[in-house]
Amino acid sequence: MKLNIALLAGDGIGPEVINEAVKVSDAIAKKFNHEITWTPALTGACAIDAVGVPYPDETHEVCMAADAVLFGAIGHPKYDNDPSAPVRPEQGLLLMRKKLGLFANVRPTFTFPSLIDNSPLKRERIEGTDLVFLRELTGGIYFGEKGRKDNGETAFDNCVYTRAEVQRLAKKGFELAMTRSKKLCCVDKANVLETSRLWRETVQAMEKDYPEVTVSYEFVDAVAMRLVQWPNSYDVLITENLFGDILTDEASVISGSMGLMPSASVGEHTSLYEPIHGSYPQATGLNIANPLATILSAAMMFEDAFGLKDEAEAIRAVVNKSLEQGIVTEDLAAKGTKAYKTSEVGDWLVANL
Amino acid sequence: MKLNIALLAGDGIGPEVINEAVKVSDAIAKKFNHEITWTPALTGACAIDAVGVPYPDETHEVCMAADAVLFGAIGHPKYDNDPSAPVRPEQGLLLMRKKLGLFANVRPTFTFPSLIDNSPLKRERIEGTDLVFLRELTGGIYFGEKGRKDNGETAFDNCVYTRAEVQRLAKKGFELAMTRSKKLCCVDKANVLETSRLWRETVQAMEKDYPEVTVSYEFVDAVAMRLVQWPNSYDVLITENLFGDILTDEASVISGSMGLMPSASVGEHTSLYEPIHGSYPQATGLNIANPLATILSAAMMFEDAFGLKDEAEAIRAVVNKSLEQGIVTEDLAAKGTKAYKTSEVGDWLVANL
Ligand SMILES: CC(C)[C@H](C(=O)O)[C@@H](O)C(=O)O
Ligand SMILES: CC(C)[C@H](C(=O)O)[C@@H](O)C(=O)O
Repeated sequence: MKLNIALLAGDGIGPEVINEAVKVSDAIAKKFNHEITWTPALTGACAIDAVGVPYPDETHEVCMAADAVLFGAIGHPKYDNDPSAPVRPEQGLLLMRKKLGLFANVRPTFTFPSLIDNSPLKRERIEGTDLVFLRELTGGIYFGEKGRKDNGETAFDNCVYTRAEVQRLAKKGFELAMTRSKKLCCVDKANVLETSRLWRETVQAMEKDYPEVTVSYEFVDAVAMRLVQWPNSYDVLITENLFGDILTDEASVISGSMGLMPSASVGEHTSLYEPIHGSYPQATGLNIANPLATILSAAMMFEDAFGLKDEAEAIRAVVNKSLEQGIVTEDLAAKGTKAYKTSEVGDWLVANL
Repeated sequence: MKLNIALLAGDGIGPEVINEAVKVSDAIAKKFNHEITWTPALTGACAIDAVGVPYPDETHEVCMAADAVLFGAIGHPKYDNDPSAPVRPEQGLLLMRKKLGLFANVRPTFTFPSLIDNSPLKRERIEGTDLVFLRELTGGIYFGEKGRKDNGETAFDNCVYTRAEVQRLAKKGFELAMTRSKKLCCVDKANVLETSRLWRETVQAMEKDYPEVTVSYEFVDAVAMRLVQWPNSYDVLITENLFGDILTDEASVISGSMGLMPSASVGEHTSLYEPIHGSYPQATGLNIANPLATILSAAMMFEDAFGLKDEAEAIRAVVNKSLEQGIVTEDLAAKGTKAYKTSEVGDWLVANL
């Protein structure tokens, strides 16, 4: 199979972790007789530095022409201290989501048996956790009208959702639930927000099309609690953009394996795969960043974008093996044991595929 | 001193826990020579049942005429399943906050040494946690314009803040920080929201008036993570209404003492004190609910509304004693030990004051 992949390494440790994901993907392609063409393109702070905008048109064209996008991380401290600066890397992210129509962000949280003790939660609370958030990614308060009035003394952000936007996200939620334990939780704040009431009534109306799926409706504040108390009581959760931003990040730390969590953003055009961690600027160039979240994102890409399940499983298996054998970067290395470099982990994975 | 207190017991277990707080408060008043007048009034589902609205005008007048309000909990399952019903208990809560001008919700999260092992978090993560959220309570997306367009196919909620609203909340935050460790964290989403940028620039401009306070600015998603990872790295946090709703609930479960957490809502008129837990309808009338959060809310009331610090300390001391001696309701009783009834806990506290 010919796989045409856009490669957006981004900023900070992005290029380093992407590099290892490319190595592992190429090795898998060789093993399974595929041919990958990687097309690199600029995004984030490095794009601002090079061409003045964080998501250049050329990058968008590369993404649109590709079968999938593999993304590293963006963000640089020089843009951090002033969130009102006219050009920021995050704007590139939002523009990319909008222009690629990436309306669903798929964020799994699961545990690795060998890493459970890294969790801030007690073992009995976290064991067996295996949940997936579907976060709406191109609507809500992120993209509504925003601005100032009264000479700058009043600020506003409008949160807007249409029934069609809710339906297309919820449809993915129901479909995902059908492939798992048939449990779907719709997270909203329907006791206060009109947009949440639209979410809830839309999902309720869709229940009849998926009679096997058991749907629950929970308020966002209650979910923020239960995620810490009984994370393994959840399976598939669907929610709007801002709630999803907060809850998926909360969920990511409970597993103790944040440096390993992959994600996908899917929608109308090319799908995008990326680690959930950030650009970790302090570690840039040190060859110490953990590449596994990016490598596991590549596995998601093989399975979901190309339907290549065996290839994905082969990557996951070798990642598990590396964890069990302690071939890990310093964030995961047990006290007193050797910490491997980013590139050494990639090399080991390639050698052990 | 004459203490004129409005008593809003509410629904579910509200009346039961309020009853014990009244017993303990009366005993304290006797001991310290104060005279309390309690004026009961209806709110919540019981008010809807009685007079058709969840926050009747008579109740508002009772609150306005009082020196403080002691509040139980509201909510009843018969109103739960339909968040779009025209009259709901929560609307009473929002109306009460708005009419009483309760713009700052004070939500401490702290640990009791004897209860640390109840936390879902590992001991070393939670030990020493002592933080306070100041949540803005009468603005933002809760109170902005909301509604439908396009024949109901589009819903919107507008989030609005004025500089003055941010200033009065932030002022309380700076003042509170000055009485504690002089650390203030402003929680926002200034990389996306215009209201957050107004929050941030307003707080930044106030820094010069409190040169001793060290202010940090963190994004809401990052705080949702760090609250689980290193809760004891926080002290005073200020934030807008919806972020506060989510984060204070998240924070409440990490201590393992959610059933004990008090809160205050303060602002333009009479201040209100209430446990953070809900109306726990399943336990109604069973005399099993934990009254300590309400009793500790009464302690906050003595200290903050009346300046009676010794009285507050006396309540906290006897509560600590009850915990150490295991005079606790079933939610806290260790396996194989006796669980006391709600009223028995109150009686024991009164006898041991
Ligand atoms: C950087 C920021 C705009 C972004 C978001 O809020 O969506 C990030 O937090 C994320 O979750 O991908
Ligand atoms: C019941 C609901 C309207 C309320 C809120 O969202 O403010 C509650 O969750 C709270 O935090 O007091």
